[in-house]
Amino acid sequence: MNSQFTDRIWKRVEPLWNNYLEHPFVKGLGEGWLEEEKFRHWLKQDYVYLIDYSRLFALGSAKAHNLATMNEFSKLLHGTLFMEMDLHRGYAEKFGISREDLENTGAAATTTAYTSYMLNVAQRGSIEHVAATVLACAWSYNFIGLKLSQIEGALDHELYGNWIQTYSSEEFTDLAESCKQLMNTLAEDKPERELAELEEIIYKTSMFEYMFWDMAENMETWPVKES
Amino acid sequence: MNSQFTDRIWKRVEPLWNNYLEHPFVKGLGEGWLEEEKFRHWLKQDYVYLIDYSRLFALGSAKAHNLATMNEFSKLLHGTLFMEMDLHRGYAEKFGISREDLENTGAAATTTAYTSYMLNVAQRGSIEHVAATVLACAWSYNFIGLKLSQIEGALDHELYGNWIQTYSSEEFTDLAESCKQLMNTLAEDKPERELAELEEIIYKTSMFEYMFWDMAENMETWPVKES
Amino acid sequence: MNSQFTDRIWKRVEPLWNNYLEHPFVKGLGEGWLEEEKFRHWLKQDYVYLIDYSRLFALGSAKAHNLATMNEFSKLLHGTLFMEMDLHRGYAEKFGISREDLENTGAAATTTAYTSYMLNVAQRGSIEHVAATVLACAWSYNFIGLKLSQIEGALDHELYGNWIQTYSSEEFTDLAESCKQLMNTLAEDKPERELAELEEIIYKTSMFEYMFWDMAENMETWPVKES
Amino acid sequence: MNSQFTDRIWKRVEPLWNNYLEHPFVKGLGEGWLEEEKFRHWLKQDYVYLIDYSRLFALGSAKAHNLATMNEFSKLLHGTLFMEMDLHRGYAEKFGISREDLENTGAAATTTAYTSYMLNVAQRGSIEHVAATVLACAWSYNFIGLKLSQIEGALDHELYGNWIQTYSSEEFTDLAESCKQLMNTLAEDKPERELAELEEIIYKTSMFEYMFWDMAENMETWPVKES
Repeated sequence: MNSQFTDRIWKRVEPLWNNYLEHPFVKGLGEGWLEEEKFRHWLKQDYVYLIDYSRLFALGSAKAHNLATMNEFSKLLHGTLFMEMDLHRGYAEKFGISREDLENTGAAATTTAYTSYMLNVAQRGSIEHVAATVLACAWSYNFIGLKLSQIEGALDHELYGNWIQTYSSEEFTDLAESCKQLMNTLAEDKPERELAELEEIIYKTSMFEYMFWDMAENMETWPVKES
Repeated sequence: MNSQFTDRIWKRVEPLWNNYLEHPFVKGLGEGWLEEEKFRHWLKQDYVYLIDYSRLFALGSAKAHNLATMNEFSKLLHGTLFMEMDLHRGYAEKFGISREDLENTGAAATTTAYTSYMLNVAQRGSIEHVAATVLACAWSYNFIGLKLSQIEGALDHELYGNWIQTYSSEEFTDLAESCKQLMNTLAEDKPERELAELEEIIYKTSMFEYMFWDMAENMETWPVKES
Repeated sequence: MNSQFTDRIWKRVEPLWNNYLEHPFVKGLGEGWLEEEKFRHWLKQDYVYLIDYSRLFALGSAKAHNLATMNEFSKLLHGTLFMEMDLHRGYAEKFGISREDLENTGAAATTTAYTSYMLNVAQRGSIEHVAATVLACAWSYNFIGLKLSQIEGALDHELYGNWIQTYSSEEFTDLAESCKQLMNTLAEDKPERELAELEEIIYKTSMFEYMFWDMAENMETWPVKES
Repeated sequence: MNSQFTDRIWKRVEPLWNNYLEHPFVKGLGEGWLEEEKFRHWLKQDYVYLIDYSRLFALGSAKAHNLATMNEFSKLLHGTLFMEMDLHRGYAEKFGISREDLENTGAAATTTAYTSYMLNVAQRGSIEHVAATVLACAWSYNFIGLKLSQIEGALDHELYGNWIQTYSSEEFTDLAESCKQLMNTLAEDKPERELAELEEIIYKTSMFEYMFWDMAENMETWPVKES
């Protein structure tokens, strides 16, 4: 059955993803007490992150084996550039971050590490590697969004309600599902050595997800001063 | 001034592009006497061509230096996959080519050579190389469309009027212009050795354009039998 | 068993490769009556070809999953750049082609098509795609070399004996064998859809091999005049 | 004059590179009191680093504009895989790290970040981007080696003398010089926007160099537990 590969992945990542829910940034987001300054840091870094994350969808369209997959990645690219990033710009405004500030944000060390990792893997490999790089972000944001949405009052929170609505929405759930389905289709009947390689990519990006929450929580940029 | 590089290119390609207008396929298209069978061959090969040509736009989005250029390439990708290719599918139906036939068309040797050339250059190089690969096709189709539109009755021809309308339209002219502007922006102040390299790419793709008309005219697939 | 994939490939390419042996250029090379001028054309185009073919070994080293494969491709790269191309330079001198002529040769349309095809596939895909692109050239030259070496007097022919010695030599046979083994290792246990894709690459490059012999025989450059 | 670009770079990186000399790991290496355990950590991580660093030379050979540059990168690739890594294996043995331990080392977060950054940039860009990615490592190790070699007794230190000999040697100085020359050749007459982009790459890799010393000093692997 097609779903086997993401089932296997789920077993591997579940303990780590459960840790996301205990992370102070995520907890604070769900329970509504997250300091705005930290959220602002996340927002700026996530904006920069999404630019490079979009490049992965572009690479997916460039490397796809067939027109249907090209179309799917093209829609994900278009949707991220013209909708999700617009949502971020709206958010930013609400939190007093100007469009200019957003555009001029430099990627923090962790943001650079995470996107570089995905872009290296995606460029070096085939379409299944591209599909593996984008999976953890889409899927785990949906996982977090759905979990936080169950906290009483979370969806209506003045500051963070929108965030939780977005990532628990039907649209975003569909997006995460289509990433999972694509991964399953591409992983089908592959030899174990290749499945292990794909699993490794998904696990590494899951670790980077945790580090990204840490980076936001600690408002990190670079451990070495940029000059 | 920004326009200098495409001015230089124009001087280099003009004699070759004028030859396109004398090519029997293009002449027959403009004057309305092109055999339908040849047009059908072009249509199927161009459909296959557009799939790979779209990958170039995807690579442009992946390699762009800034968000504005990423957005531009994303729009070109989306537009080609969801509009230009749809136009081709409509055309195909009119000419009795089923959707299935279209999807199952194998790229001819010349189609393979041309798209492989562009995709190799685009992957090996930077965003300016991507911009150089897509230029000749977009610009020369607009050049041909505009020239043929001046032939009396050409725009209203029962079979080929639509083709000439499409490639001489304001939308397509804008698309070609935006490809030229992007090339000029990226070429600005570059050293001569790099300009010469970009010129070479545009000249080579212009030669492949001629060979593509030849391929259509002679309804070529492969000089060696595929088995 | 590991050897299955190249066995399958052999069944697919055998009829086409047998046609190589009947090709006037190859026949003339083996029987010693090939016109020198045609050989000179081949030599110059093959020199240009080897530059791009070497890039495939470089990509193999860049994309390899492990150090052993990186080392193997690095040796192939080093060997081609510093030995096989030196052999060609020696040959060229013998046939009155100066080093400068060799370096200034422009790739013919068929040479461009063939190397672009391989480089596109290799860059777009994973290490197994790189391995598939290099296979037909190495293996079929060895196949031809070994066949021609059985013709009486062929190995001692004043002009073409060296060529046949080179490609039928133990070293070259080992090189071809290591390309086959690598392909088999990477293809092992892969799903049919991926094996079919690799087979297609090997068949396409085999067709380009035939077209390369044609190009040499007819001393072709470009069907459109370069200016 | 050709040397201008690395002169400009020198002005930018000098303060940061001087900090390397004050870093406890580097200081301990030069003054001979570095804890062996930390050096062992560096050795294993640097071994893993060199595998990916070699891929950059391979990409340089794949993307080079001419045969001379292909040859140069091929030599750097061959030299790193078959000489520098052999030196590391010899070192490892001396420090009680088995070949197996070395091969099974997983890249730490900082190692992954640094090599991913370079490989992403190198794959996305042209040959000049490849040249920019490899520069800081080669040049700064030579810079450090030469500085440490001036400390009395450093070159003869029982444990770390070899290290300082290697990176201050004439061969390694030549290697660093050839990387600088290549960068200067490729940067010549480029527009400011492109020089600024190359400078940014060199500065970022210089920051990663500092973080790599930190990672060795603190014997870091991942801030999140790998499972």
